[in-house]
Amino acid sequence: MKNYKSLLFIVLLINPIIGLYAQLTVNQDRLEKRITELAQFGIQENGETERVAFSDADLAAQKWVISELKEMGIETHIDFAGNIIGIRKGTNASKKPISFGSHIDRVPHGGNYDGCVGSMAALEVLKVLDENNVKTKHPLEIIIFSNEEGGVVGSRAIAGQLNKTAFPVKNSTGYTIGEGMMRLGGDTTRLADVARKKGDVAAFLELHIEQGGILEKENLAIGIVEGIVGLKWWNVEFNGFANHAGTTPMNARQDALLAAAKFIIAVNEVATSFEGAQVATVGRISAEPGAPNVIPGKVVSSLEIRDLSSEVIEKVYQEIEKRALAISKASGVEIKFYALDTTADPAIMDSTIQKEIEKSINSLGLSYKSMPSGAGHDAQDMALIAPTGMIFVPSKGGISHSPKEFTSASDMANGANVLLKTILALDKSL
Amino acid sequence: MKNYKSLLFIVLLINPIIGLYAQLTVNQDRLEKRITELAQFGIQENGETERVAFSDADLAAQKWVISELKEMGIETHIDFAGNIIGIRKGTNASKKPISFGSHIDRVPHGGNYDGCVGSMAALEVLKVLDENNVKTKHPLEIIIFSNEEGGVVGSRAIAGQLNKTAFPVKNSTGYTIGEGMMRLGGDTTRLADVARKKGDVAAFLELHIEQGGILEKENLAIGIVEGIVGLKWWNVEFNGFANHAGTTPMNARQDALLAAAKFIIAVNEVATSFEGAQVATVGRISAEPGAPNVIPGKVVSSLEIRDLSSEVIEKVYQEIEKRALAISKASGVEIKFYALDTTADPAIMDSTIQKEIEKSINSLGLSYKSMPSGAGHDAQDMALIAPTGMIFVPSKGGISHSPKEFTSASDMANGANVLLKTILALDKSL
Repeated sequence: MKNYKSLLFIVLLINPIIGLYAQLTVNQDRLEKRITELAQFGIQENGETERVAFSDADLAAQKWVISELKEMGIETHIDFAGNIIGIRKGTNASKKPISFGSHIDRVPHGGNYDGCVGSMAALEVLKVLDENNVKTKHPLEIIIFSNEEGGVVGSRAIAGQLNKTAFPVKNSTGYTIGEGMMRLGGDTTRLADVARKKGDVAAFLELHIEQGGILEKENLAIGIVEGIVGLKWWNVEFNGFANHAGTTPMNARQDALLAAAKFIIAVNEVATSFEGAQVATVGRISAEPGAPNVIPGKVVSSLEIRDLSSEVIEKVYQEIEKRALAISKASGVEIKFYALDTTADPAIMDSTIQKEIEKSINSLGLSYKSMPSGAGHDAQDMALIAPTGMIFVPSKGGISHSPKEFTSASDMANGANVLLKTILALDKSL
Repeated sequence: MKNYKSLLFIVLLINPIIGLYAQLTVNQDRLEKRITELAQFGIQENGETERVAFSDADLAAQKWVISELKEMGIETHIDFAGNIIGIRKGTNASKKPISFGSHIDRVPHGGNYDGCVGSMAALEVLKVLDENNVKTKHPLEIIIFSNEEGGVVGSRAIAGQLNKTAFPVKNSTGYTIGEGMMRLGGDTTRLADVARKKGDVAAFLELHIEQGGILEKENLAIGIVEGIVGLKWWNVEFNGFANHAGTTPMNARQDALLAAAKFIIAVNEVATSFEGAQVATVGRISAEPGAPNVIPGKVVSSLEIRDLSSEVIEKVYQEIEKRALAISKASGVEIKFYALDTTADPAIMDSTIQKEIEKSINSLGLSYKSMPSGAGHDAQDMALIAPTGMIFVPSKGGISHSPKEFTSASDMANGANVLLKTILALDKSL
């Protein structure tokens, strides 16, 4: 151990410009091994893993993560929201922690990578620092958020955004969010103690797989997340006139489904009619009365629009509304929009942190692009209380929330290295 | 009575060209009164009538019709299929009956006109002949078919088309077709005795409301039905790829619902792209997984095509299939057609009877047009065993199968007069 320290000292002396930290890299094999080990918690006979939040598998995985952290000497506890919190002390007592992490719960029939990559990479970062005996000014905090897939519950609690109305909601385990939080070691009566204020966290970083297939398609190693898109939902009602499909001539119909079909095409045309990464989706549809021999009199569909900018969401919506009005006039089918209370505001990632991530990527010689995250993540709530950044790595075919999810060990290691370097850079600059 | 007969004799003498029968007309008030009386069977507190086949109301209405017929001296019985059969003897024992009638059962939440107009008009025709002491060569047979709305069951039995597989099917009364037939006084074990052969019936006529709103729109009194359209049903499957609606860029989607929307529009365009009364309808649709935030990976819809000509149905289908193939190629969404076993062949009305109906209309100075029936009727099965004709009268706004259904007394009387005159004409010519 003494020789090792001497060696480090020499390296530091002979390499004064690049510095010690430039040499630090994660252990790719160890990272991959932890991904495999984590996938054992909840593994089924068919080789696929089920680990929905609050399940026995989720609890077992939680215990395993805690033991791994304690083995590295990290002070670890479960907070009242069921999050795993591990603190590695810093050298400057006045500094707030640099926090990073992700989640280990999974959707039903999900995959081994999703939040697991960012969680295991966070462990790996701490392990590398530990084995290299690297000290940081800031405390380093690993957070493995509870129940991300059930509504970013753990991160909402930390951001002070979790409402009690969420407690009775059951997930596929049969436990409610309230019951599940208690199962994980939390305490629903003491959530106020979990909530943090702006300034409590120096910076937050999350590594995650990119779920749109863009990095893989463009053959890029890293995505720098510019922000997590906001979304708005509507129910759209089409009121025509149900009538006999045999006796009603084509030109005498008020076919609600025909109007809805034109609307669905208009939604697609509007969303693709101008530059940008905005997306608009009709995912749900029902037609009444729903018989092959009756012209549909009423159709209800969903409409979802997402973008990094609330203004763009509004612009897309206005244009869709305009098109709907024209369809309505031409068809005699009334079209009504009902905005739903599921709006999420865009969460913009901190620009300084984005620049630090870019520097880290460049120092590693990796390819990258800046991009929005179309999916929600724990980082979106953390952005409410701390300067936040996200690092994406490719997911094969853009597949996620599926047992077919796959990210290669080298892609994971690239992401973990960017995470490591960015943490160390922020430790210097903040 | 003797004076009356003498008077008739004198009229006959002084009006030898036009003949007695030209003077006979139905009693509009009496016809309207019977429609109102019939609507009492099953009347609810809200003033609307419910009389689904096999209900107590259906049984009570059946008894009332039988008593009305018996009062006119008509030999009446219930056949083994639950049909009301009334025979008015003819003067020539070698003649087969001229049959006519419709049905008095109703769909749930149906109206007072539908099959009731043709049924009450058939009673009125017999009443007019009775009170004018008119004899016919042919026996005249009134048939009030059982359970028309549940699958033209009574007429299928008479045409020898009723399959035992239909017996276990329940309607909204909770009774199965088999049980209901027994309730009506039929006997499911003796249906073979009900089935008739070609030649057993000299002609069959049915008066019915027109359910497409065409006569009302064109301000016409009578529709001469050219035939009852055939129909074919398909299930159409669209297989795309379900994906995250936030992370999947617009240009990377295989949106099954977007392809289905294009298909629905294509169905409409094809059906309206050439001359003719063909109709094509998508009435049922489902999208999976059916969440606002997931791009639909699978859609299943219905497709129905109707026309008087099987060749036209096939032509429309071929064209739709061609368009579907183009949509599939452009979108990467696989589209598959599954033909369903619900095909009904077109039932062409007898051309001689159509001409006789036209002559009757002209002698009454009424406006008319020839047209297909887009809906199925008892006449379609009767056409399998007898030269068959159908007479349509307007239904307000083309509304049917609704408490809002309405046909004016004069429109009903026009139809009944055409029915009366055509029966008498056929009695002479056949």
